[in-house]
Amino acid sequence: MKKDIEIARAIEKEKIVTIAKKMNLTPDDLELYGNYKAKITLEKHTESIEQGKMVLVTAINPTPAGEGKSTVSIGLADAMNASGYQTVVALREPSLGPTLGIKGGATGGGQAQIVPMEDINLHFTGDIHAISTANNALSALIDNHIYQGNELQIDPRRITWKRVVDLNDRALRHVVVGLGGPIQGVPREDGFDITVASEIMAILCLAKDLKDLKERISQIVIGYTYDKEPISVKDLKVEGVITALLKDAIKPNLVQTLEHTPAIVHGGPFANIAHGCNSIIATKIALQHADYVITEAGFGADLGAEKFLDIKVPQLEKAPDAIVIVATIRSLKMHGGVSLADLAKGENIPAIRDGFSNLAKHIDSLKAYHVPVIVSLNEFTTDTKSELEAVKEMCDKQAIPCVETSIWANGSKGGLELAKTVVDAIQTNTNDYTPLIPEGTSMQEKIALIAKNTYGATTIEYSAKALTQIKQYQELGWGELPICMAKTQYSLSDNPKLLGRPTDFAIHIREFVPKIGAGFIVALTGNVMTMPGLTKEPAALEIDIDENGNISGLF
Amino acid sequence: MKKDIEIARAIEKEKIVTIAKKMNLTPDDLELYGNYKAKITLEKHTESIEQGKMVLVTAINPTPAGEGKSTVSIGLADAMNASGYQTVVALREPSLGPTLGIKGGATGGGQAQIVPMEDINLHFTGDIHAISTANNALSALIDNHIYQGNELQIDPRRITWKRVVDLNDRALRHVVVGLGGPIQGVPREDGFDITVASEIMAILCLAKDLKDLKERISQIVIGYTYDKEPISVKDLKVEGVITALLKDAIKPNLVQTLEHTPAIVHGGPFANIAHGCNSIIATKIALQHADYVITEAGFGADLGAEKFLDIKVPQLEKAPDAIVIVATIRSLKMHGGVSLADLAKGENIPAIRDGFSNLAKHIDSLKAYHVPVIVSLNEFTTDTKSELEAVKEMCDKQAIPCVETSIWANGSKGGLELAKTVVDAIQTNTNDYTPLIPEGTSMQEKIALIAKNTYGATTIEYSAKALTQIKQYQELGWGELPICMAKTQYSLSDNPKLLGRPTDFAIHIREFVPKIGAGFIVALTGNVMTMPGLTKEPAALEIDIDENGNISGLF
Repeated sequence: MKKDIEIARAIEKEKIVTIAKKMNLTPDDLELYGNYKAKITLEKHTESIEQGKMVLVTAINPTPAGEGKSTVSIGLADAMNASGYQTVVALREPSLGPTLGIKGGATGGGQAQIVPMEDINLHFTGDIHAISTANNALSALIDNHIYQGNELQIDPRRITWKRVVDLNDRALRHVVVGLGGPIQGVPREDGFDITVASEIMAILCLAKDLKDLKERISQIVIGYTYDKEPISVKDLKVEGVITALLKDAIKPNLVQTLEHTPAIVHGGPFANIAHGCNSIIATKIALQHADYVITEAGFGADLGAEKFLDIKVPQLEKAPDAIVIVATIRSLKMHGGVSLADLAKGENIPAIRDGFSNLAKHIDSLKAYHVPVIVSLNEFTTDTKSELEAVKEMCDKQAIPCVETSIWANGSKGGLELAKTVVDAIQTNTNDYTPLIPEGTSMQEKIALIAKNTYGATTIEYSAKALTQIKQYQELGWGELPICMAKTQYSLSDNPKLLGRPTDFAIHIREFVPKIGAGFIVALTGNVMTMPGLTKEPAALEIDIDENGNISGLF
Repeated sequence: MKKDIEIARAIEKEKIVTIAKKMNLTPDDLELYGNYKAKITLEKHTESIEQGKMVLVTAINPTPAGEGKSTVSIGLADAMNASGYQTVVALREPSLGPTLGIKGGATGGGQAQIVPMEDINLHFTGDIHAISTANNALSALIDNHIYQGNELQIDPRRITWKRVVDLNDRALRHVVVGLGGPIQGVPREDGFDITVASEIMAILCLAKDLKDLKERISQIVIGYTYDKEPISVKDLKVEGVITALLKDAIKPNLVQTLEHTPAIVHGGPFANIAHGCNSIIATKIALQHADYVITEAGFGADLGAEKFLDIKVPQLEKAPDAIVIVATIRSLKMHGGVSLADLAKGENIPAIRDGFSNLAKHIDSLKAYHVPVIVSLNEFTTDTKSELEAVKEMCDKQAIPCVETSIWANGSKGGLELAKTVVDAIQTNTNDYTPLIPEGTSMQEKIALIAKNTYGATTIEYSAKALTQIKQYQELGWGELPICMAKTQYSLSDNPKLLGRPTDFAIHIREFVPKIGAGFIVALTGNVMTMPGLTKEPAALEIDIDENGNISGLF
């Protein structure tokens, strides 16, 4: 069996200027990064023109069996184009953390990939590095301010702004900086997040333009004074340099799929610890230059889709016209209690029926938004006909179309029926999108809506710290900001071990982190961490390069 | 008076493919980064073809008055081309540390700049970010190895591999990582260097090709076992992924000067804490595609030029055909005891005579290499005729040509006489380059040669730690590796306050750091630090960007 990277390398790519033409972008709209990557300039894209239709691809809670959400997003876009619908796919940029950690890449798989995959998976056009640098320049300027006399009276014990690195680096979660005596700085506790959790990543993904970017950066709260007053970037007067460091990162990147569909890949917040969607600027450009835009949000529908719908949509001012939920027989079985090793043991319809509860919950939650929902059942060669039929039947009972796809093996050909189903759903959609969270709800009401409606929790338990923060945030006028939940991706609950559809569980709100520039409050639940660690045998050990520059081990 | 960035923006750049043509590079040899930046592919540049002549530009010890070494390098290349000599300038890439710290940019000044200066000064083509990432991925893999059972028995107290960030961040010099309990890692002392001090930067600049890069990376020593045996990257088996992360960074970058001279800008180790030269690959490509190559080494001749001659030349297998030392009346006055504030007080020939001692020492040291030496006296409007004459006279006594240049104000026109003098010197050069350090000398002999001949020190004092390390390194077979001195740039001594030509001083060897992949041992002298700090009013505070993406405050 050919590896993804071998398939990707074997295909002749079209020049990126040719790809751009498919969405009516001229060479003047591009800044080339070699022949196959480009940034799209921000000029000309601010005016309001007619927008295309938008399809959000999401999934059940991820399992080690693999669901193939990016693969389906890419293959669906290819299938739409193959069916005569002008379509662009808009995705997030991979973080190096998981690329070197567990995943080995995030550019689809099999016959549905975006290319050049080595570049996209490694440094790409440098956006994430620019974000790391902007984030850490702010940290250096904060610590320097304190060292140089601390005019603003920043309390070193109350700095909430953390440093970042775009790697899975457990040892940096909790650190002490500024050690070594008076000429080395002021000692304080600090920690590193992974870059994709940085507020600057969130801001870049939510900003409308360069002006909005700078305005949001100026509003970032980095900590508190000794008098517990919040300190913003504008108090430090460094929003100019932080924004300047993002001058190129704010421009969306254009690449292509293996079937030469334009792919806009921009911004990459994780959906478990951040808001999980690609950038508003990229989505808007895609919508202005295509009849159909396929986009995805991170992890399962409880995380990425919820944040897409409740955080991104209000700012994008456009709701999806259809939502595709990706599931596989294998992953439904795991939600039904089968172990990864036992997946090979053949047909197991009872397990699928049990595991379907996870998919059913996501269907229910998404139906509440009044957007058409379609299940994409992503085939594996080991699936039996009865297994596939069982899932279709259960979807039928929920009045949801369930379409088999074989995109990984067959590319667009494996997604033609899904494309047709999606277009049909959009054309009959009555466009009565309804948000989950009404305006004017309190922090606790918002959390209750998400935890109960989306996760299916029975209760919400707040730590003493969280309760104090709620009071404090209300006094500071932050009480009505949207909530961005940070929760394990593996379960509907905040306990990664509870697969399927857990019932009778509480969501534990440990702590809040204000992201005032991004315009939301992060709620940390359970034991979720904003800096992943590496496994005993990380993907990094497999990655190699030969003397001609050919990379292996990315998949 | 126009700011550098205004001059740079006002000039119409040529397309980079047009620039490339001037050095017989076709579009196929390039990977474009927009219209005005490109990477040069590594294909076709490995075979030995006729090489051009090489001019090394260096300077006296830097003062706050400014010497203009990059400006002279760029302007000399422009003047060479204007005089009919096909010339390329090969420089280092700026680090964001000083750009946001004290310098605000490192792309020349006035009428002699490389462009696009905003891009080059900020993230450029991402090389330094790739190096930071490769460096820190190795750190994460080391800490993960220990956390996951520590099969190699790495002693956490004896890890010499530090993390890096390409910023001036004092608070990261000494840190404790791995805090927070058993699931967060193993606590240990650590520290961050600035990226340009990373061994990976040194390796990238010394590697011959991708294969050599990987081989050198595999030889990096990251620390010691509990039994005090060195641990290399190859023991961790991660040279593949570290090298893969550098797949683009190893390719030299092509930009242009304001007068459209090709400028290869690649690699950027500092000369005070690292080896201070641009990459061997870039220099070789330049030499293969130009009749003359102007290159520079960092800081004063005691640091950058010494390392260029003693570390880079043996690996490049080519010595410079001429050396230009840059000085200004203002900086000579400061070496003669005048304060920055008092520079405005007008003519002061006695101070210049005193300060000339600094220049004289560098002339002496460089003469010993048997390469023609030329002084470039870089004019300021405040210089008087008698002051300029005094310096010329003193150079005359040393039998060294001293040429006035007005490159900052006049571009190539201000460097035509320098160009002529350089070409004359090269044409009459007898090519009997003699290295300072004979083969087979011990660590202490090497240090003595550099400290006494280059710095003019009388004695060398070793700390107890350094003496122990010498013994240890001899046992490990590292005793004959070149020494890369880490020393303040401001003085010939290791005390930044001793300007001019200090006499009767000792060089204090505090500690060694083995850089086995780079192939040298760093000797830390005095109080030199491998992570700079920010000043009270860093350049970052001046940097801004408007809503159209125009950057200000880089100069």
